[in-house]
Amino acid sequence: MKKHNFSAGPSVLPEYTIKNSAEAILNFNGSGLSILEVSHRGKDFIAVMDEAQALFKELLNIPEGYQVIFVGGGASLQFAMIPYNLLQKKAAYLNTGVWANKAIKEAKGFGEVVEVASSKDANFNYIPKGFTVPEDADYFHITTNNTIYGTEIKHDFDCKIPLVADMSSDIFSRPVDVSKYALIYGGAQKNLAPSGVTFAIVREDILGKVDRYIPTMLNYKTHIENGSMFNTPPVLPVYSAMLTLRWLKENGGVQGALERNNAKAELLYNAIDNSKVFVATVPNPEDRSIMNACFVMKPEYAEHEKAFQDFATAKGMIGIKGHRSVGGFRASIYNALPIESVQALVDCMNEFESQF
Amino acid sequence: MKKHNFSAGPSVLPEYTIKNSAEAILNFNGSGLSILEVSHRGKDFIAVMDEAQALFKELLNIPEGYQVIFVGGGASLQFAMIPYNLLQKKAAYLNTGVWANKAIKEAKGFGEVVEVASSKDANFNYIPKGFTVPEDADYFHITTNNTIYGTEIKHDFDCKIPLVADMSSDIFSRPVDVSKYALIYGGAQKNLAPSGVTFAIVREDILGKVDRYIPTMLNYKTHIENGSMFNTPPVLPVYSAMLTLRWLKENGGVQGALERNNAKAELLYNAIDNSKVFVATVPNPEDRSIMNACFVMKPEYAEHEKAFQDFATAKGMIGIKGHRSVGGFRASIYNALPIESVQALVDCMNEFESQF
Repeated sequence: MKKHNFSAGPSVLPEYTIKNSAEAILNFNGSGLSILEVSHRGKDFIAVMDEAQALFKELLNIPEGYQVIFVGGGASLQFAMIPYNLLQKKAAYLNTGVWANKAIKEAKGFGEVVEVASSKDANFNYIPKGFTVPEDADYFHITTNNTIYGTEIKHDFDCKIPLVADMSSDIFSRPVDVSKYALIYGGAQKNLAPSGVTFAIVREDILGKVDRYIPTMLNYKTHIENGSMFNTPPVLPVYSAMLTLRWLKENGGVQGALERNNAKAELLYNAIDNSKVFVATVPNPEDRSIMNACFVMKPEYAEHEKAFQDFATAKGMIGIKGHRSVGGFRASIYNALPIESVQALVDCMNEFESQF
Repeated sequence: MKKHNFSAGPSVLPEYTIKNSAEAILNFNGSGLSILEVSHRGKDFIAVMDEAQALFKELLNIPEGYQVIFVGGGASLQFAMIPYNLLQKKAAYLNTGVWANKAIKEAKGFGEVVEVASSKDANFNYIPKGFTVPEDADYFHITTNNTIYGTEIKHDFDCKIPLVADMSSDIFSRPVDVSKYALIYGGAQKNLAPSGVTFAIVREDILGKVDRYIPTMLNYKTHIENGSMFNTPPVLPVYSAMLTLRWLKENGGVQGALERNNAKAELLYNAIDNSKVFVATVPNPEDRSIMNACFVMKPEYAEHEKAFQDFATAKGMIGIKGHRSVGGFRASIYNALPIESVQALVDCMNEFESQF
């Protein structure tokens, strides 16, 4: 049976990435050696790192003055690295859910944190609007896509202070005006690579402005100055990321990704909005994520939730159980998920509700 | 041509690890999905993490009171995590080279550091002896194997204060009396796994004794309390590590590894010691690493260094160039390197010197 992978992350990757990652483990560049057992300082892997960085810059049209780095530790480590490197006195954060909260918690260890706005009052089912960012803060942090709740900030906006964005779950899903950001970062395990590598796009002029001692590995400068090779990088995840970026370039870049993502999201949200048994958890279409669609059973059908879960699983749908804090269902429809999988889910939903 | 992989790290891994890592990327546990694209919270990967931790405990005979964790970031990040978690006032370090120095540098950001002894006077070609560890220090840090110089502390010793050991490049090469250590850690990319995962064996009673705020991801307690799943772990490197541990268990465990490693080291060091053109850089056999054998041309043959490098490369020897700070040659003979590769190198050395 064909499986449809709606996992929230780690999540579906292009066949190109998977097949070539496996091939490189057996025989890297025809060397007869595995990519897992060669030096990261050898010319073959240096070429991989260079290509990954170059494709990042090309596909996101990154302006001069920015550097792309790959490090380990996950976005969760970035939650600490950001205030370590940037928070001198005060930072501003937008609270859009669990991940934003984790970022806020870490920043509080380094200075004053202003929570500019929050959607906690409605279990984070919308993106706060009309907030004012304090101009005396060192930076303003946002989480552009909130996987758990299915909300997303889908546009770039102007900010008078350095704008820092966690784009773990929507990087490369759409064109981004990088010039509006001081720092964009994220774990790779959604649209980019397997888990184990984290990217950061850093505008260099924001660094070097705090007084505190920064441990070497937590200092962005370390990784910039050493081309992400200060220590041994996570070789296979970086290689897989490069493969995904090659695939993306071959498939219309981020504009192509956006068009496919919009089509997938429209198909799925239309099915939810026109359903008699399902309802989207995010009421405002403007705030709905094109990466994670969250929906629950309408109250009068709530008793059938497990039945739908079982029905969908039997039809090959993987990973559609919603996060426990929202309940119901979540379909993650990242870049590499084909529209045929979304159609299969919609068919599955329609078939299920035809019994009522 | 058969290649012999003497790379210092990332380095040779068992065929079992390589083949099964590639297989899991194509089809994980027969699921039809790649291990790169499934949830780390799914039962299949939880079983991997559990088995990796259990094999660590079994193979190293880890006593009660210790926890094994897997994190990202490399041993270089541990250089900061150790003082972050353990250094209240003063720490003691043994200076055995570049990596020990990097660990010392990070500790200095957190408190007073006493360098107990150093072999810098002889370019770190021996392990200092007869030193006294200050009993009022919070811990004593050693680097058991020094890849660059080919020195190794091959025995466990008593220490009155918590003993912390970087075993990045010799973990699982021999039985270790874990009870003599408070913390053992290392990057995995020598004897264990591809790069991207770091292990730590932590005696729990050493934690929670410092006053400072510890960022969540840098706190050992976070990873212990969450079974290395606080955030998304580096899935493929952890899986590969588990495979290597299975392979090690099937091949006599650490005692079997020690016997094979001793045989390989004896073969290689005997060839060097009996050579008319090569000489070991570590004079004292007691201090010689059984993981990395460093040797140079005798002064009267120094002009032939490049010729030997080219000769060996043509014979399939990979990664034998010495580190720039030592020069000459370095053969890394980690667990997964078969003795046939060492014999091939020895044959190559003998053939080369037969011209003189």
